[in-house]
Amino acid sequence: MESSLLEKFDRLNEQTGYKNRSEAIRDLIREKLVNEEWRSSEQETVGVFSLIYDHHQRELNKTLTSIQHNHLDVIVSSTHIHIDRHNCLEVIILRGKADVIKKITNEIASTKGVKHGALNMTSTGSNL
Amino acid sequence: MESSLLEKFDRLNEQTGYKNRSEAIRDLIREKLVNEEWRSSEQETVGVFSLIYDHHQRELNKTLTSIQHNHLDVIVSSTHIHIDRHNCLEVIILRGKADVIKKITNEIASTKGVKHGALNMTSTGSNL
Amino acid sequence: MESSLLEKFDRLNEQTGYKNRSEAIRDLIREKLVNEEWRSSEQETVGVFSLIYDHHQRELNKTLTSIQHNHLDVIVSSTHIHIDRHNCLEVIILRGKADVIKKITNEIASTKGVKHGALNMTSTGSNL
Amino acid sequence: MESSLLEKFDRLNEQTGYKNRSEAIRDLIREKLVNEEWRSSEQETVGVFSLIYDHHQRELNKTLTSIQHNHLDVIVSSTHIHIDRHNCLEVIILRGKADVIKKITNEIASTKGVKHGALNMTSTGSNL
Repeated sequence: MESSLLEKFDRLNEQTGYKNRSEAIRDLIREKLVNEEWRSSEQETVGVFSLIYDHHQRELNKTLTSIQHNHLDVIVSSTHIHIDRHNCLEVIILRGKADVIKKITNEIASTKGVKHGALNMTSTGSNL
Repeated sequence: MESSLLEKFDRLNEQTGYKNRSEAIRDLIREKLVNEEWRSSEQETVGVFSLIYDHHQRELNKTLTSIQHNHLDVIVSSTHIHIDRHNCLEVIILRGKADVIKKITNEIASTKGVKHGALNMTSTGSNL
Repeated sequence: MESSLLEKFDRLNEQTGYKNRSEAIRDLIREKLVNEEWRSSEQETVGVFSLIYDHHQRELNKTLTSIQHNHLDVIVSSTHIHIDRHNCLEVIILRGKADVIKKITNEIASTKGVKHGALNMTSTGSNL
Repeated sequence: MESSLLEKFDRLNEQTGYKNRSEAIRDLIREKLVNEEWRSSEQETVGVFSLIYDHHQRELNKTLTSIQHNHLDVIVSSTHIHIDRHNCLEVIILRGKADVIKKITNEIASTKGVKHGALNMTSTGSNL
């Protein structure tokens, strides 16, 4: 590989914290594989969904709980953080096929009162 | 607004689960504001960082714990899920300025043994 | 809509150059519709593919021309810019189904000597 | 490197068209370096901006031409494609600092009548 390319890569890795070039390359490869996992319609994967909502919104808590209970086979856990007097952060971990995870998290994000929903597409790690 | 544009938007919202056009528009606006929050160097924001690692990797657990303890003012909570015999998922919630959150999560992601790290950029909700 | 949300949206639009709130909302909606266009396997869409390569790389020019000629039904035009003594930028406009455009541009990007390939997913505009 | 990781990477590369593993790795590294180029406030870079607009929109053509003429030092070329009776695609190549390119393309995208604007962040190639 061209030494000038590697030099620039090493410099960048130093900034982001890598101690070791091959670990940085491995991470680039794994990133690609995780993208593939999410494009696949067969593989099992893991999603971490974060939502911000106002807990004063009537009925919202009930709706969110009910959506989660309808998908117990996919929803692994749920963590709740009180951000301030109005806002709650809920982090839901899901495990299943990419399409199923996206459908459930879309349903939650589009519920009235949910201010922000963001899906983190990660992995079971078994392919990495 | 052109009715043909609204018609297509309504059709799309129906698919993603929105019951109501103005909630869908509000969510598009909030998405933009969250992006801004992450571009700002002043505002406080919230990040949810997911990492996959092999718990057999020597020393890794200790390193991860030590990084987190060095940033107690930013790290709010940490949830651990046992994915399989090898792989762990850890979900760390951070609250602080965008740059600080990125620096800490880069440090974790670049640690040897961490297979995948993904940062979900969400918000405190107080601007939404 | 909540006035505090609109206020923040207006302030953001002023920074990015919008003169008019409803044009900004229309653009958010169109952005969503273009994303959909690229997820669809049926709709015709438009891609703009940019590649950077070193024209000293043997055989590369021939390969790039041959790939383009194999897809004359999809490739609309090609613009060439001489960046410096080594580097060329070529911008290829493609029109067809999302999957076909992605396949061709992946083929080009993975050719040895192509340093960077980036696909801009835009639209025919007929749905917007 | 773990052979199981490389095996999966090779399989993925075959699908996207890579003939050669080290070219695929080089491209991952270059992708990272281009991202850095766009985060930098100093380096010169190249952007390819695509916009879709309805040429029946009064005054739009004049406005677009005037914006471009105000930035002759950054705008390298402009290609125009007639998509259908209403819609035009214009592809503008810009060369300069990331911030300047973003500012100009934001200005164009927010002009009334522009239906979609998308910025492709590529590179001069001199760092790759």
